[in-house]
Amino acid sequence: MTKRQPTRSFASDNNAGVHPRVLRAIARANVGHVVAYGDDPYTQSAIRKFREQLGNDIEVFFVFNGTGANVLGLQALTQPYHAVICAETAHINVDECGAPERFTGCKLLTVRTPDGKLTPEGIKPLLHGIGVEHHVQPRIISISQATEMGTVYRPAELKALSDFAHQHNLLLHLDGARIANAAAGLKVRLREITADVGVDLLSFGGAKNGMMYGEAVVFFNRDQAAGFKFIRKQGSHLASKMRFISAQFDALLTNDLWKKNAAHANRMARILARELAQIPKIEITQKVEANGVFAIVPRRYISLLQKQYFFYVWNEVTSEVRLMTSFDTTESDIREFVVLVRQTVR
Amino acid sequence: MTKRQPTRSFASDNNAGVHPRVLRAIARANVGHVVAYGDDPYTQSAIRKFREQLGNDIEVFFVFNGTGANVLGLQALTQPYHAVICAETAHINVDECGAPERFTGCKLLTVRTPDGKLTPEGIKPLLHGIGVEHHVQPRIISISQATEMGTVYRPAELKALSDFAHQHNLLLHLDGARIANAAAGLKVRLREITADVGVDLLSFGGAKNGMMYGEAVVFFNRDQAAGFKFIRKQGSHLASKMRFISAQFDALLTNDLWKKNAAHANRMARILARELAQIPKIEITQKVEANGVFAIVPRRYISLLQKQYFFYVWNEVTSEVRLMTSFDTTESDIREFVVLVRQTVR
Amino acid sequence: MTKRQPTRSFASDNNAGVHPRVLRAIARANVGHVVAYGDDPYTQSAIRKFREQLGNDIEVFFVFNGTGANVLGLQALTQPYHAVICAETAHINVDECGAPERFTGCKLLTVRTPDGKLTPEGIKPLLHGIGVEHHVQPRIISISQATEMGTVYRPAELKALSDFAHQHNLLLHLDGARIANAAAGLKVRLREITADVGVDLLSFGGAKNGMMYGEAVVFFNRDQAAGFKFIRKQGSHLASKMRFISAQFDALLTNDLWKKNAAHANRMARILARELAQIPKIEITQKVEANGVFAIVPRRYISLLQKQYFFYVWNEVTSEVRLMTSFDTTESDIREFVVLVRQTVR
Amino acid sequence: MTKRQPTRSFASDNNAGVHPRVLRAIARANVGHVVAYGDDPYTQSAIRKFREQLGNDIEVFFVFNGTGANVLGLQALTQPYHAVICAETAHINVDECGAPERFTGCKLLTVRTPDGKLTPEGIKPLLHGIGVEHHVQPRIISISQATEMGTVYRPAELKALSDFAHQHNLLLHLDGARIANAAAGLKVRLREITADVGVDLLSFGGAKNGMMYGEAVVFFNRDQAAGFKFIRKQGSHLASKMRFISAQFDALLTNDLWKKNAAHANRMARILARELAQIPKIEITQKVEANGVFAIVPRRYISLLQKQYFFYVWNEVTSEVRLMTSFDTTESDIREFVVLVRQTVR
Repeated sequence: MTKRQPTRSFASDNNAGVHPRVLRAIARANVGHVVAYGDDPYTQSAIRKFREQLGNDIEVFFVFNGTGANVLGLQALTQPYHAVICAETAHINVDECGAPERFTGCKLLTVRTPDGKLTPEGIKPLLHGIGVEHHVQPRIISISQATEMGTVYRPAELKALSDFAHQHNLLLHLDGARIANAAAGLKVRLREITADVGVDLLSFGGAKNGMMYGEAVVFFNRDQAAGFKFIRKQGSHLASKMRFISAQFDALLTNDLWKKNAAHANRMARILARELAQIPKIEITQKVEANGVFAIVPRRYISLLQKQYFFYVWNEVTSEVRLMTSFDTTESDIREFVVLVRQTVR
Repeated sequence: MTKRQPTRSFASDNNAGVHPRVLRAIARANVGHVVAYGDDPYTQSAIRKFREQLGNDIEVFFVFNGTGANVLGLQALTQPYHAVICAETAHINVDECGAPERFTGCKLLTVRTPDGKLTPEGIKPLLHGIGVEHHVQPRIISISQATEMGTVYRPAELKALSDFAHQHNLLLHLDGARIANAAAGLKVRLREITADVGVDLLSFGGAKNGMMYGEAVVFFNRDQAAGFKFIRKQGSHLASKMRFISAQFDALLTNDLWKKNAAHANRMARILARELAQIPKIEITQKVEANGVFAIVPRRYISLLQKQYFFYVWNEVTSEVRLMTSFDTTESDIREFVVLVRQTVR
Repeated sequence: MTKRQPTRSFASDNNAGVHPRVLRAIARANVGHVVAYGDDPYTQSAIRKFREQLGNDIEVFFVFNGTGANVLGLQALTQPYHAVICAETAHINVDECGAPERFTGCKLLTVRTPDGKLTPEGIKPLLHGIGVEHHVQPRIISISQATEMGTVYRPAELKALSDFAHQHNLLLHLDGARIANAAAGLKVRLREITADVGVDLLSFGGAKNGMMYGEAVVFFNRDQAAGFKFIRKQGSHLASKMRFISAQFDALLTNDLWKKNAAHANRMARILARELAQIPKIEITQKVEANGVFAIVPRRYISLLQKQYFFYVWNEVTSEVRLMTSFDTTESDIREFVVLVRQTVR
Repeated sequence: MTKRQPTRSFASDNNAGVHPRVLRAIARANVGHVVAYGDDPYTQSAIRKFREQLGNDIEVFFVFNGTGANVLGLQALTQPYHAVICAETAHINVDECGAPERFTGCKLLTVRTPDGKLTPEGIKPLLHGIGVEHHVQPRIISISQATEMGTVYRPAELKALSDFAHQHNLLLHLDGARIANAAAGLKVRLREITADVGVDLLSFGGAKNGMMYGEAVVFFNRDQAAGFKFIRKQGSHLASKMRFISAQFDALLTNDLWKKNAAHANRMARILARELAQIPKIEITQKVEANGVFAIVPRRYISLLQKQYFFYVWNEVTSEVRLMTSFDTTESDIREFVVLVRQTVR
């Protein structure tokens, strides 16, 4: 059943539409025929822009969505007897209906974390049974940047993780569904939290940052990308009219649109958190480093608020909710919502 | 490497862009926030229009592309020890990089056909070893409508196949990447070649008929759709911003746009075939019943033509080429191409 | 590298050989030709004996080993988007190299337990997101009887679990690699801890109780076994010379050999635990209800002991070792070992 | 339903029992405890004997059966988007219930052959679409030696196939369920039809040549075996009491038992064929180069014969039957059967 709701809610950055510049880029690409499946100038241009951001040595492939990017990228770097280490809260662990296990055959080994962030110390206890055939063999450390908790890894934290990974014959995967929010929050260039700190595989998100659909799988080591075009096609993620994904990424990577969208969403999240924090009985539970706000709201108020605003309860036990801002959130959206919360809580 | 080419080629209906009405529908849907993943009014409306076309008892799910529709639909109706019977030329057999086997575990059992069409007689020899555990168990007959050879099944032929299937405890899958072309060619309503003739599962194509992306999986028996929402999500084909697929299908099913696009493409194919047939040394090899034209062209001319037009050689041995028309093909596109062929062949 | 060791160690009940009566049964079955793959009188006889033990409504299939029994049985009852709930220490979770995920596609959801035993209370928190396509859907509760910790579920505990399972649309799988030890320990008939308490699927172990190889997959609901013969064959667990697995099970189920072997091993474990408990600095950590003994042994002694006896450290952190007895363990084996431990610890 | 039958039929070499020397080796290995899963002296000895036969550079792993050997070996050398080329009659194609597709994800591409033997010429037409992501990528040529038709590849034919394979970036797999029969028939050493002629992967059969169970996977390039121990375990083919497979192979490779068994079965097949060929209306259809005899027998006689002898009709259309001899077939078995055939046909 469709929930009634105001123009813009705080349920998810997936609930937003498409940025006008992205939509215009799609329209501009809608001219005549081009070769299907990516052998077209729009795709070449978008790939060039990815290389400008992330380095000339990358290989980049476009797929339809984030789950596709994650599972197909992971398949490229694993054997079915490998294990993928991730946070218990990781999207690949809880929000992809078991797609990673199903596509890769791998087991996911999870680490409990207070803030969604992995550390070498947290991972170490999982590195046992190495070389023993009875046990799955850890091969990938998969982290989310920004995390599902709205927190962000610093470049030094990423470097520590990739060093740790490589010392232990592991590879580092970064689920960057919200990498733009992370980079904007850190005020760094995209390569400073990927190529420069030893990330091996990146899922680069588009849909949560103003695109209609489309995600990119980026390999920082070309050898590891060798079979990926087959994996993508067999994985049913090769778009026939590829140019329309490419044109969107091209727009996102032109004139820093990716950064503007993300920085705006982040700023809205900070404002929202600041306002909510001043309301009695509401407690902000995570640092607001990207575009997510986590807050404990007494249970009886949640249901009242949800009558007018659709949003997700993150943790039923602790009565914690998740509020997300997006590229199109306005300050007046926030004001309206905060007024409602104040009235409700009073 | 990108091929140079005229504005519109005859390589594939996938090389065309998006119909303007579809693009406008996307733009119209780009308003405010809606719940992600399909719980939105655009999706409800599109589903309603599918039901108007195909019957109220269907279940319909949108996915990103045709390979996704085929393999996930087939997964829903099979166990890994089943077999899927199809024409040797079927898209699922030769053009999906083994995705059906990989996703479903099933073996594909193929039938050689001169025209891409299956018949009960052609299938019968494959129905052995039933109940014997050493052998895969046939479960699905999968046909393409229109076929990969540009031919079309009559309603009576479909009925004969579905009767045969159901008598043998099999189900009938219709890969309808070009079902619009088939229906337009037959001058029948969509339900006359699906629900009315006993089709169990349909992949309903959008991208080859003027959409940007998006395909629908239609179950004609609701029980068989029970787990499909999980299959789609785990199969990484659940679109977050679903409304933009839905809006496209809505446009396609409004004011018979699906039929106009397809009928136009079909007419262009007939004209193209008629013109080519008059050129010496060129031989049309298949009936032109949809939007594909198959022709034998002497080998030395093919390479000359391909310098200016990108198109596919279908059969290297017989020197047979495939030419496809699309919703945006014009009569002057055809004239231009035919002139070139005449000059080349002369 | 092969470890030097005494005639019989306490490393694993898998390290024992074959019970003489089992070996004789094999030799007796080695007469002339019989139809391969199970259509033979030895298999019919063994199945009959299983039905005498577990009820006439069961379906039983023989496979080569325990991993095969577990994963193929689970495959029969699941879809790839389901989840299997088990103890963190479960064999399927830690000792099968990810085979369950790889074969079934399912995610394993684990529960931390002090003694390897699941309870409804421990499972409840995992039953969320039901019906929501983003999340795997719990479908199976899988328990080990006896557990990997040497503990045993009482019939009432099993009944509580199966009631809980069935109330929540789940099925109960029992990994019975050591079900004989459990039944012998409880002094109950096999059906009292399976059919009578609502178990749906059973992996019935042979190799840990005196057989050479072979495990049985038992379905307590015939409908659920419908496709299993194909699953077994496709899962590469259909033995061509099936009669030799069948003859072994026949011997095990004749004159209560299964019970004698298990009761003996259990008694040896109790003696071993009693003796070790009297040694200073050694602490027995789990109830000895089957044929396993868990004990904390100071780290420096472990390595000394392992020079002469091969056994496994269960938990490096707590310095806990696992000692297993088997059908052929003798009291003098125990005396010898205990003497060594006393000398080492002194 | 179990068929009534004489002591020894000609249905299958799988219907025979265990050679007495193999059974004695099992009994001899049944002494005390040894480390499970292959870290034992019996396994070391058997591996040594394999190296004596096939070269010191091999890696060899024991599994439970032939399907397991084939599919796990193939998994080790393929990616899911690869294709395996084999004869239409190959065991992996028709008799393993789709296990190869299910385990490896690969499509099987088949070649029609009159005698079950592949040739470079027959394979060539399948080598198209190389490098094109829409199509599966041929990676393995899989042949059976002896073939399912009872024919045998000469060393030069094998060399031609492996040269062809390696020139086209393919690997050569030999399904050696009956490799002993082939080597005995050719009067060559095992290495002359494997290592010496460029075979990459071998499934070495035991059960069809006097063993109870057990098959070996042999890699002739050690690098390709790197992950196999995990593949075997995850594939549920790691035997806990491995010593009993090893002891059987040890016996088979001691004093040329493998060769004696196979040569005897081959000789019985030649006699059987010679006798049948003299009976009017019976036509031998394949060269008898191993232990199989294929013959056309008028349909009405088949059913009469099957009342007393269980054997398989190979081809219903041509009324062709398959008769297999085994290590324990006697000349009087043949005489008895031939007498019956003569009486029936008369």
